[in-house]
Amino acid sequence: MKKIQMNFHRLSKGQKMIAQYIMENYDKAAFMTAAKLGEKVGVSESTVVRFANVLDFEGYPHMQKELQEMIRTRLTTVQRIEMSTDYSNEENVVKKVLKADIDNLRMTMESIDFKVFEEAVKAITEAKHIYIVAMRSSTTLADFLAFYLNLIRNNVYVTSRSVSDIFDILFRVNKDDLVIGIGFPRYSSKTIEALDYAKSQGAKVLAITDSLISPLVSHADFTLTAKSNMESFVDSLVAPLSLLNALIVAVGIKEKRKVSTTFGKLEDIWEKYKVYS
Amino acid sequence: MKKIQMNFHRLSKGQKMIAQYIMENYDKAAFMTAAKLGEKVGVSESTVVRFANVLDFEGYPHMQKELQEMIRTRLTTVQRIEMSTDYSNEENVVKKVLKADIDNLRMTMESIDFKVFEEAVKAITEAKHIYIVAMRSSTTLADFLAFYLNLIRNNVYVTSRSVSDIFDILFRVNKDDLVIGIGFPRYSSKTIEALDYAKSQGAKVLAITDSLISPLVSHADFTLTAKSNMESFVDSLVAPLSLLNALIVAVGIKEKRKVSTTFGKLEDIWEKYKVYS
Amino acid sequence: MKKIQMNFHRLSKGQKMIAQYIMENYDKAAFMTAAKLGEKVGVSESTVVRFANVLDFEGYPHMQKELQEMIRTRLTTVQRIEMSTDYSNEENVVKKVLKADIDNLRMTMESIDFKVFEEAVKAITEAKHIYIVAMRSSTTLADFLAFYLNLIRNNVYVTSRSVSDIFDILFRVNKDDLVIGIGFPRYSSKTIEALDYAKSQGAKVLAITDSLISPLVSHADFTLTAKSNMESFVDSLVAPLSLLNALIVAVGIKEKRKVSTTFGKLEDIWEKYKVYS
Amino acid sequence: MKKIQMNFHRLSKGQKMIAQYIMENYDKAAFMTAAKLGEKVGVSESTVVRFANVLDFEGYPHMQKELQEMIRTRLTTVQRIEMSTDYSNEENVVKKVLKADIDNLRMTMESIDFKVFEEAVKAITEAKHIYIVAMRSSTTLADFLAFYLNLIRNNVYVTSRSVSDIFDILFRVNKDDLVIGIGFPRYSSKTIEALDYAKSQGAKVLAITDSLISPLVSHADFTLTAKSNMESFVDSLVAPLSLLNALIVAVGIKEKRKVSTTFGKLEDIWEKYKVYS
Repeated sequence: MKKIQMNFHRLSKGQKMIAQYIMENYDKAAFMTAAKLGEKVGVSESTVVRFANVLDFEGYPHMQKELQEMIRTRLTTVQRIEMSTDYSNEENVVKKVLKADIDNLRMTMESIDFKVFEEAVKAITEAKHIYIVAMRSSTTLADFLAFYLNLIRNNVYVTSRSVSDIFDILFRVNKDDLVIGIGFPRYSSKTIEALDYAKSQGAKVLAITDSLISPLVSHADFTLTAKSNMESFVDSLVAPLSLLNALIVAVGIKEKRKVSTTFGKLEDIWEKYKVYS
Repeated sequence: MKKIQMNFHRLSKGQKMIAQYIMENYDKAAFMTAAKLGEKVGVSESTVVRFANVLDFEGYPHMQKELQEMIRTRLTTVQRIEMSTDYSNEENVVKKVLKADIDNLRMTMESIDFKVFEEAVKAITEAKHIYIVAMRSSTTLADFLAFYLNLIRNNVYVTSRSVSDIFDILFRVNKDDLVIGIGFPRYSSKTIEALDYAKSQGAKVLAITDSLISPLVSHADFTLTAKSNMESFVDSLVAPLSLLNALIVAVGIKEKRKVSTTFGKLEDIWEKYKVYS
Repeated sequence: MKKIQMNFHRLSKGQKMIAQYIMENYDKAAFMTAAKLGEKVGVSESTVVRFANVLDFEGYPHMQKELQEMIRTRLTTVQRIEMSTDYSNEENVVKKVLKADIDNLRMTMESIDFKVFEEAVKAITEAKHIYIVAMRSSTTLADFLAFYLNLIRNNVYVTSRSVSDIFDILFRVNKDDLVIGIGFPRYSSKTIEALDYAKSQGAKVLAITDSLISPLVSHADFTLTAKSNMESFVDSLVAPLSLLNALIVAVGIKEKRKVSTTFGKLEDIWEKYKVYS
Repeated sequence: MKKIQMNFHRLSKGQKMIAQYIMENYDKAAFMTAAKLGEKVGVSESTVVRFANVLDFEGYPHMQKELQEMIRTRLTTVQRIEMSTDYSNEENVVKKVLKADIDNLRMTMESIDFKVFEEAVKAITEAKHIYIVAMRSSTTLADFLAFYLNLIRNNVYVTSRSVSDIFDILFRVNKDDLVIGIGFPRYSSKTIEALDYAKSQGAKVLAITDSLISPLVSHADFTLTAKSNMESFVDSLVAPLSLLNALIVAVGIKEKRKVSTTFGKLEDIWEKYKVYS
């Protein structure tokens, strides 16, 4: 949609008609073939295809996919529940869900920006303090990341568990620090406020979210994305969790000695105080 | 090892020698070929292969794999860190970790017992109260499951976040209730104590763990497994999380009306109080 | 101030002049004698005294005290820190703070409305579910209350510890339930939103706050107050905590059998699993 | 009892008889007059009085009081519930509870060791990291203390809220750090294990507990006590909370500039993001 708006002045008259139609009926347009869409608008199929090219899509299917994606995130949760009727028995449910998560992982693997990943690892290693910010179901990701980063290095704070208001921890953030904001659709305004504040204080901000059009991105210095698609009222945090695994492993390798010291200590403690069975 | 002990009386003399050697040197035996192991013990390769069959393995490679698995879980975390040297650069790390998680998901999908899954869904739907018990990194799974189950039905309690001692919530559990214990290696003794207590009170117990030889299993009425393999100091909770997704989706379908009501209310609230951006 | 506004039409011309002055300069007026205030406004001292009487104060000192109270709660925390310079050494600090808390307890004891207290105890006993709502330092009061109520009865939920967004627990509240909102200056808008929602769903609302002019009061069916005065950046929760003690003891007496059962169970557990030294 | 054991060799024959009787029947002896106790044992009243003096009590009533105290902490919670029958109506309950808390505060004020208090303030100011450890209802005190210390200085960690196993945070403690252990009867073994570990790592340990015979004391470098008496199943944390107020105020005065900076920032944040009503 932004692309359409930004390129509107460059469009031919026929293309402008397509643009108009899509902006007003994107929920229908998203599921039409190029031919069908052309018919609706009153232009030829090839005009539709060129339209997609002008907007810098590799082809009509790519544009269509993005429209569908957009719809998905705009669907209310209630609508998504109505949609999820094709899980006819429980064997199918398990297979579909795990299959969807394998797809999420695969797409995440393909789209990961290794340069940004490397920067993120470096930032985690070098930051004086790390603040991890998340709300609602994403707090489980924040807690997982905090759990392991805390075993690797000190000064790791997670806002989700320890305080009722994020700012009671985050207020002290400054330019030597890293704030990791984790947010998946639907994006909590509290998380965005927190990143907004962090930036205003000069801190480095890493966003972990589902796409580059997430509202967290514009408050972040760099962004890692992982897919959270699930045709249900649940947002899958499986691929994001795997991405966190990768971050933790990579940081752990960089800080091998510290990790080794930590676990040396912990294993003494665990044995002495019988933490494990 | 149990299999060896249980079948020891049925073994031939040569097989007993193999058994003896394995029990004393399993860390070496796990990485020997059948021929090599035979040589060490002083028996023929085919005796070794028959030995594996007597113990009900499909073949020597299966026995070897189980020995390796056993070693892996017995390795201290420090040893595992020493091992994880093959992550030579960060691109590799990401790929290896996500690849390992895809494998975890695939193995989980193949090994899932749909009958047990169905029972679990039924139990979650029918229980008067649900208590979710976990410790350390597994608390993030518990919190995720609790977050969504709580949107579907009432009377869901998670011990991880709300109390410093599990029993301050769990003490009230009784035969109308379901306790979901989540535990991955290394298994926390606190979680096992909790399941032990739950069983003693007549509650139904569902274990979510990594294998059927996990210590949680013997305190549970039924068990769902998901792989958590990761050649690092991190235990991957990716496949377990996907399994929870499946559980939540399946329960959500059964309780479609309740989910719809919940999200109807929440979306009114979110709009009124601006929870989302 | 409300009193002035509500009674404005009943005032004489001289009294109206006093009213005007106070509303515009209450921070100064609060520290003037009746004579001085009269002089400022241009009326006699006795007009000022009668003015206090018309507003239903027992005398000028009572009106003055309320003005001062009002100022205190409007002071920013920074201003209060500037004020707290009279703690000259640490022995004095301890004595002053504990003395202030004894005063808080005494004032609380004198002002408690036993009829409301009785209603609160009844509501706690009869509610189907109890939700306890608080933010920031007041979460510690909420957790304390939840800890003990949970030992007395089931279905007690505290929003502070378990979720990042209150509504993820509170959404289900209905007319059979009791919501206990705990808030002391400065009053969190999140707590007030929560009480607002609870009322809209027909739930009974008990406010625990510092005075009857607290913003929680108008969203509550009944209110218990406890003083939180402390000449420092700390808000004392000592008298509120003692009030909670009283509530818990009173409910515990009503539900003696349940408490006895709970502790019977817990002491078995504690002994078996060695929770206590 | 320890006093008796330690002084046994110094006792006269008649005194030894008293000692013997008390050790075997302390629950009865605690409620006898000196005359009655003498009669039971078969010695004179004045022998009993001298006995108390030999054990360094200021008089028989002091010894008796300590015996009663000892009994109280040994009573199971169930027995204490049985005892609390004299709360005949709710007005009485409120008055008795608040009165008991005023007494707790007064006794605490009288018994506070200002030298230790001063040391505690100094240690809080100087420690590189502060870890606050508590379990069960005492976590509310820990959270309160952490909430305010975190506004004054950085590197404050509270084990109660953020992790399911204390050692996941505490493992890193060392000689530059301060560990504040908070524990009231009945004393959690987990808290004591934590202090034990902290001492073994050379950290400074401050115990906040109810008396100098609490099991926390022997693992601490210095101890502050506050009374928690309540004739009910509730342990009153009112006087301990007031003691924490005093600590926070005293530290706040020492770090006035930091507190001022913090609240300056927070008030900007609160205004910008509308945290308060």
